[in-house]
Amino acid sequence: MAKQCEHVPSPKDAAHADNHTFQHYSEMNVDRIYMDYNATTPLEPEVIQAITEALQDAWGNPSSSYIAGAKAKAMINQSRENVARMVGGRAGDIIFTSGGTEANNLVLHTAVEHFWRSCGASERGDIGLPHIITSNVEHDSVKLVAEHLQTERKADVTFVPVSRLTGRAEVEEVVAAVRPNTCLISIMLANNETGVIMPLQQICQRIKSLNRKRERLRILLHTDAAQALGKIRVDAPELGVDYLTIVGHKFYAPRIGALYVRGPATQTPLQPMLFGGGQERNFRPGTENTPMIAGLGKAAELVTLNLSDYESNMRSVRLYLEERLKAVFKARVHFNSHYSGTDVLPNTCNVSILGPTLQGWRLLSNCTRLLASVGAACHSDSGNRPSHILLSCGVPEEVAANALRLSVGRATSRADVDAAVEDLRQTVELLEESN
Amino acid sequence: MAKQCEHVPSPKDAAHADNHTFQHYSEMNVDRIYMDYNATTPLEPEVIQAITEALQDAWGNPSSSYIAGAKAKAMINQSRENVARMVGGRAGDIIFTSGGTEANNLVLHTAVEHFWRSCGASERGDIGLPHIITSNVEHDSVKLVAEHLQTERKADVTFVPVSRLTGRAEVEEVVAAVRPNTCLISIMLANNETGVIMPLQQICQRIKSLNRKRERLRILLHTDAAQALGKIRVDAPELGVDYLTIVGHKFYAPRIGALYVRGPATQTPLQPMLFGGGQERNFRPGTENTPMIAGLGKAAELVTLNLSDYESNMRSVRLYLEERLKAVFKARVHFNSHYSGTDVLPNTCNVSILGPTLQGWRLLSNCTRLLASVGAACHSDSGNRPSHILLSCGVPEEVAANALRLSVGRATSRADVDAAVEDLRQTVELLEESN
Repeated sequence: MAKQCEHVPSPKDAAHADNHTFQHYSEMNVDRIYMDYNATTPLEPEVIQAITEALQDAWGNPSSSYIAGAKAKAMINQSRENVARMVGGRAGDIIFTSGGTEANNLVLHTAVEHFWRSCGASERGDIGLPHIITSNVEHDSVKLVAEHLQTERKADVTFVPVSRLTGRAEVEEVVAAVRPNTCLISIMLANNETGVIMPLQQICQRIKSLNRKRERLRILLHTDAAQALGKIRVDAPELGVDYLTIVGHKFYAPRIGALYVRGPATQTPLQPMLFGGGQERNFRPGTENTPMIAGLGKAAELVTLNLSDYESNMRSVRLYLEERLKAVFKARVHFNSHYSGTDVLPNTCNVSILGPTLQGWRLLSNCTRLLASVGAACHSDSGNRPSHILLSCGVPEEVAANALRLSVGRATSRADVDAAVEDLRQTVELLEESN
Repeated sequence: MAKQCEHVPSPKDAAHADNHTFQHYSEMNVDRIYMDYNATTPLEPEVIQAITEALQDAWGNPSSSYIAGAKAKAMINQSRENVARMVGGRAGDIIFTSGGTEANNLVLHTAVEHFWRSCGASERGDIGLPHIITSNVEHDSVKLVAEHLQTERKADVTFVPVSRLTGRAEVEEVVAAVRPNTCLISIMLANNETGVIMPLQQICQRIKSLNRKRERLRILLHTDAAQALGKIRVDAPELGVDYLTIVGHKFYAPRIGALYVRGPATQTPLQPMLFGGGQERNFRPGTENTPMIAGLGKAAELVTLNLSDYESNMRSVRLYLEERLKAVFKARVHFNSHYSGTDVLPNTCNVSILGPTLQGWRLLSNCTRLLASVGAACHSDSGNRPSHILLSCGVPEEVAANALRLSVGRATSRADVDAAVEDLRQTVELLEESN
């Protein structure tokens, strides 16, 4: 299917250089303003350096007994500590995976397997299916796994709808969905499109009191923290989750991930999906991707050191962006990420500029400088259909159709914002004139 | 468990520099001679360059609609073509995975799922379990998956023993193992410890004639080509396989992999293990690891261009190694990889130096320059137990206990061989004196 919002800049675009946000993006950077940091981030220079050094110097097989292996192994262990520290866990709680998709799949797989393992063979016929609770605004790597389990009759799933008033999966709604067979609750920490932060700590507290009263089956607690890490403080023990998904390329790290598991196999079940050479304590075998793991560790270290700076810069730039949008578009601006009493990610502005010709895809494909998206990158093929996430949050269809997800990054400046808003202003003018 | 064969060089080792084989291995390279290329390889400089460039310039989300995404997407497609060309396939036949472990798991998973999907719902009770045929010398990422399926009563498995005369899984043995429920045959192309090349083409030919007579269930054909790629010519259509596993870090590429599938979903079934954002045509979702994919593509291109040079250099150096070992150790040398009439990988020499104190792990842990292994790297924790692969090939236990797997690489020189053999000679002398 042809993409509706393809945009390739013409050579003339290169004339006006503004390479601030695109500092790492050497060839096509001139003139462009990247505001799609929720889709992916560039890598920090220190992260690239860590990867490159490992490619050169730590290519030994980490399982080899001699020094070439030992050096790679030491690098992996250092990264494991850095990643653990970023989420308040211990090194032993971190399992490296190929990415967030694998980590999320692994959690749902584990919950179903654990359900069957924890009931006796005699019960299997009577007990019914394992039951999973999730929200209706999860990333596809949770949503589609849950739907697949449902289709295959391997699990029952409740997709708790987020509140149309708050954009959140509310605690009472989640608790009300619990059944005797519930084995897992998986709720994202922050939504990728609206930036809405979910009440994970409260959900976990309530479920833990329920767990204390349940005889048989403990309800496991998972959060996909892909969009939260590097933007807000994330402390897995404080949240109270059993599992937390870590995705490198959302916090200036490379395209691998990790799963935090509170005491894997000792306190929290973990059932491998893959079998092989025993790496990652058999939870996730396969020769370790040392360079990418080194990069992930370096990026985690940067988050631990600098989070408050990152957060405050992103927040102030995003607030400035919202001010500028209001100043320029006045009553025509509708913020899809503003809910009374709801915290949102510091960097995410989901906004619609109202008007019959101003659909998000059309606006972005006519912008000459702004690079952003209308929703999750992996839905970019869906063209001009409004985001199901926004519709679920109660955004009316004609508003959702015009939505732009503008997500700023660590280095986004007020000058970038000015230029992006001016680009939008000109594009709106163009689209309304030509109509 | 403590490793038995740990060896960390002392600073004095650095005095005698021989950085030929260790050219990429800046800090600990001096003096060491790496002969464990079957465990892992360094990355070619062009491959590191491709990765580094992608880290800098192609960090966009390949699913994004704008140019940053388009550039990453184009890079991935170029790699897909290069990887396809290396194995004689078409770009559409290549599914990128996190590595060989995942690729192998995906094939066995597919075979079992496909078995149930191809029988009617009414048959399910009567039909029995899907049956898989493999050899008894496969890598753990096939072996342990098969054993897991067996334990879970999800499949029956026949582990065809390799011939003690040829080291190969022989065609007649494989064909004799076929049952009405057989859904998959998975035989490695070349063994990682002995280097023995399996008769895949003949196996595929025989099974294809069987398939023409079978009404219901086509037997799918898989080979794990991890150890063969970059060492011998590998052409998937010529072999006749449906699936072929590609592992980057065995041919100077990074730690990702790919699965060749002859016409995925059109000619050959492929059932995803992961669900998510739709990448890799939904066969393997997850935001693509663009830099590693770029590196894999570059390494594949180098193999396509230079294979005959690589092969002839490795073969001549390995033959020279065997000559030198014979010259120095005379009748005490036993080659575990020599079978009459059997082809072996050009780079692999599995050798035992006979003597009561010369166990492989003991010899290697006392060598001052040679870095090699006693078997698969992922078994390095198993300490001093003889390799089950060698025992399966008919090597007597006391000979197998002394085995060294020496595997040379593209840049291994005769001078390296001389030095390694001298190191072995001195170490043997030392061990026999001190006894």
